[in-house]
Amino acid sequence: MRESELLEHIYARSAGIRASGGWAVVVGPGDDAAVLRSPKGDTLIVTVDQLVEGRHHQTGTAIDLIARKAVARSVSDIAAMGGRPTWATATAVLPPGFTRADELFDRMAHWAGVWGCPLVGGDLATHHSPKHPLTLTVTIAGVPERGPVTRSGARVGDGVYVTGLLGGSLDSGRHLTFDPRVHEAAGLVGVLGDRLHAMIDLSDGLGRDAGRLAAASGVRVEIDAAALPMHPGVLDWNAAMGDGEDYELCFCAEGAVPDAIEGVPITRVGTVVAGSGCVVEALGERHDVSALGWDH
Amino acid sequence: MRESELLEHIYARSAGIRASGGWAVVVGPGDDAAVLRSPKGDTLIVTVDQLVEGRHHQTGTAIDLIARKAVARSVSDIAAMGGRPTWATATAVLPPGFTRADELFDRMAHWAGVWGCPLVGGDLATHHSPKHPLTLTVTIAGVPERGPVTRSGARVGDGVYVTGLLGGSLDSGRHLTFDPRVHEAAGLVGVLGDRLHAMIDLSDGLGRDAGRLAAASGVRVEIDAAALPMHPGVLDWNAAMGDGEDYELCFCAEGAVPDAIEGVPITRVGTVVAGSGCVVEALGERHDVSALGWDH
Repeated sequence: MRESELLEHIYARSAGIRASGGWAVVVGPGDDAAVLRSPKGDTLIVTVDQLVEGRHHQTGTAIDLIARKAVARSVSDIAAMGGRPTWATATAVLPPGFTRADELFDRMAHWAGVWGCPLVGGDLATHHSPKHPLTLTVTIAGVPERGPVTRSGARVGDGVYVTGLLGGSLDSGRHLTFDPRVHEAAGLVGVLGDRLHAMIDLSDGLGRDAGRLAAASGVRVEIDAAALPMHPGVLDWNAAMGDGEDYELCFCAEGAVPDAIEGVPITRVGTVVAGSGCVVEALGERHDVSALGWDH
Repeated sequence: MRESELLEHIYARSAGIRASGGWAVVVGPGDDAAVLRSPKGDTLIVTVDQLVEGRHHQTGTAIDLIARKAVARSVSDIAAMGGRPTWATATAVLPPGFTRADELFDRMAHWAGVWGCPLVGGDLATHHSPKHPLTLTVTIAGVPERGPVTRSGARVGDGVYVTGLLGGSLDSGRHLTFDPRVHEAAGLVGVLGDRLHAMIDLSDGLGRDAGRLAAASGVRVEIDAAALPMHPGVLDWNAAMGDGEDYELCFCAEGAVPDAIEGVPITRVGTVVAGSGCVVEALGERHDVSALGWDH
């Protein structure tokens, strides 16, 4: 069973789940983050991501960059819901003899502080096997600017937009140094208000992630390959949509959208139409790209 | 650096941390769980624990028991704060070719439901290496009955009590089938009220865990070896205090304490005195047992 199939299984099993103790599940499994409502009416966005050596970073990556990416990935999920981080927890499974755990946690605490979500708890384990990869999880809670903005609100006729530039994240090292689009997301919520219908962060590539947004919204996303904003050196639309780990925002909105937010360019890359999947039109041919990119 | 030293480093670094977005950190790193307060005044208890194949369970353990323990460990932390679980998230790093991920998540969802905290989100990763152990994390949020009850409130003159029986958890398999003491904790909060001064769950053994409670409270815990309630087959006080993974509650209270709560026996095992550490008196000799048991 592929990860994407397993996730579908989990989402189907999770329909209608109910919390206890006066808390309510507003958005359950299947979006960038869960959304809960407290007994007195506070909204809390919660996401968790893992960072596994050999999978999400190479052995030998600088400790500071590992710590940064572990926190930044979850911050990006909070941003994708139109939220701001408020507090976080972190866990680590350390290989035996790993001598820099204090530095690792200091840097995780540093980056969590930078993005406004101090580490309030966590757990540590050391594995017996020297082959065990360093494995981190970071859970971040956030508060919505208003909303929150889910993947499921896109409407036929919406424009499809991305922040920043796409492609080449792994080769360039940008996957270790990206800025999660927290301020940009908050800016978009402020400027667009109810015209901001759906949003997702681009972790697996625009093709697959816009396909997820399309599936959640019950629509089709059509992308114009010629419109894609690409980093210098990125060869073609296939790389721009499939390289993954951009951690830019993809959003669907109606009406006028600014050319930039918080100094980051915004590019219209497509349109929401009736149907399903994510389709790109390039040189007069159409390709279904919902399964392009990573499955992670 | 040992795990306990690293944790001390993290706790020291975390003093005075502040959340954003209107949330407040009531209890930060260093207790069984963190405690947060929402903008409108709701209290949320948050804990995260990891379950690593080869470390917390043996390869070949039944999927249902792995799932159960992964959830139960975190539920036990919520109980130790005098709380009830309300919602949860889970993550997994799967070895390549792991074919039973759907069953694993179904059983985690089952057990999360049993303890009142449905899985509202999570993350999945598959590692490339076939030697990668199955690694799970479960984060649980809870609401306090009132309180919450921390490790740091023990006072000189308090009695020291444990629920249930101690020792032999790993050899007997009880570490896979224990019932987290949620109802018992709630019962104690109800019966004892403000006389319940401090509580911790016994994951690493009474010696080490009572030592942590003593350190957090700035007191000494004295244990009477002859009073320890032991499972049949547990040889001596050393095993009862050092085997670990009991997941019983250890608490400090003043005044009368019932002999049982929710049908589970309560035994007075010692007294809080001035000083530091956890000391056991056995056959007329005194032993410092703060470093007995697991460091995990």
